[in-house]
Amino acid sequence: MSVITIEKKILEKNDLIAANNRDFFNEKKIFVINILSSPGSGKTSLIERSLARWGKKIKFGIIEGDVQTDLDAQRLDVFKVPVVQIVTNGACHLDANLVRDAYSSIEKEEIELLIIENVGNLVCPAGFDLGEHIKVVVTSITEGDDKPLKYPSVFRNSSVLIINKTDLLPHVNSSLAKLKKNALSINPSLKIFETSCVTDDGIDKWCKWLKTQINKNESSTFY
Amino acid sequence: MSVITIEKKILEKNDLIAANNRDFFNEKKIFVINILSSPGSGKTSLIERSLARWGKKIKFGIIEGDVQTDLDAQRLDVFKVPVVQIVTNGACHLDANLVRDAYSSIEKEEIELLIIENVGNLVCPAGFDLGEHIKVVVTSITEGDDKPLKYPSVFRNSSVLIINKTDLLPHVNSSLAKLKKNALSINPSLKIFETSCVTDDGIDKWCKWLKTQINKNESSTFY
Repeated sequence: MSVITIEKKILEKNDLIAANNRDFFNEKKIFVINILSSPGSGKTSLIERSLARWGKKIKFGIIEGDVQTDLDAQRLDVFKVPVVQIVTNGACHLDANLVRDAYSSIEKEEIELLIIENVGNLVCPAGFDLGEHIKVVVTSITEGDDKPLKYPSVFRNSSVLIINKTDLLPHVNSSLAKLKKNALSINPSLKIFETSCVTDDGIDKWCKWLKTQINKNESSTFY
Repeated sequence: MSVITIEKKILEKNDLIAANNRDFFNEKKIFVINILSSPGSGKTSLIERSLARWGKKIKFGIIEGDVQTDLDAQRLDVFKVPVVQIVTNGACHLDANLVRDAYSSIEKEEIELLIIENVGNLVCPAGFDLGEHIKVVVTSITEGDDKPLKYPSVFRNSSVLIINKTDLLPHVNSSLAKLKKNALSINPSLKIFETSCVTDDGIDKWCKWLKTQINKNESSTFY
């Protein structure tokens, strides 16, 4: 019972810091997205393609979360945008405090869109608010079409679903229609994009949508 | 600080139950493997192919772990072997107590090889001993070749690595050689198999190895 109490306290403390983060981001007019997925679904590739598409038109900032290594931050460094790597040293998700600390190292930069790439994990990160405006869940078609049913929490808590690696559709048994149906059965209001970071299919549509979200911020806060 | 203490207590309690589980399995001469991977790497498909190959020659028992649904247990039910589904209701890993409880529902069956399919998660399950004899980590080639470096704990704690979905190798940028090199840099003693559950490539080799592990048990305990 005491474990539950302490876990509750940890979550309450996290939510408080997350709310402060969000207030801060609103004040600065920074739109913040928290990207979640299984390991290897293509979160970093998607950020790479987004930077290639909009890197000169949108002022990006990136926070990379990984259990170990700064390999992802290295990949993004070539785009010459502010990138911070959080190495969690075994922890299975980011929390609001880690994000606050990471952001402080790029706070002098002018940022319109802050992308937080969470630890690759379809379970634990779903429960931790980081102060983002929206959660984006990425699933690759190679993972099968049943993932929304088996890991509902992350699909329920996200506003956007990106179905990635669509170039591999002809080579796998997964059904795109079934995956979308399963996702919408968990969360009917999910906005869905289909992308391939190899052929660039769908990247433009996703990036344009992202740009409209930032533009909304010019006259008002997000929430 | 109190959280760490309680986490330590949870792990200590888990280790004690896991040791009891292992003693019990040794006494019954049941070889137990704990399969871990990201969501959608092909754990269930691998079990399906193993059952198709050895289902009539080896007495299998299966414990399925999922955050939600009994979809995986349904898939395996057609093989007419004892299958138990654990639904963790949000928890990100199995623990020794859940395995003990699940096993009790099939304990009257004659079992030589108990396969535990853990929750799809490359982080949390690595730290929880279930009483298995070996951990087997599955990674699919579509997840990229850097996963052992980014999620080292599960690769360090496993005895076997199965690189799955090798049929997709011609269609992805991942390097098989690099993936193996990265895995062995984390754990040089990993026994590596390459499999495709679509073409059946490598399944026979994996199944034969599995059979030798069970045969070992005819005259002695595993540990």
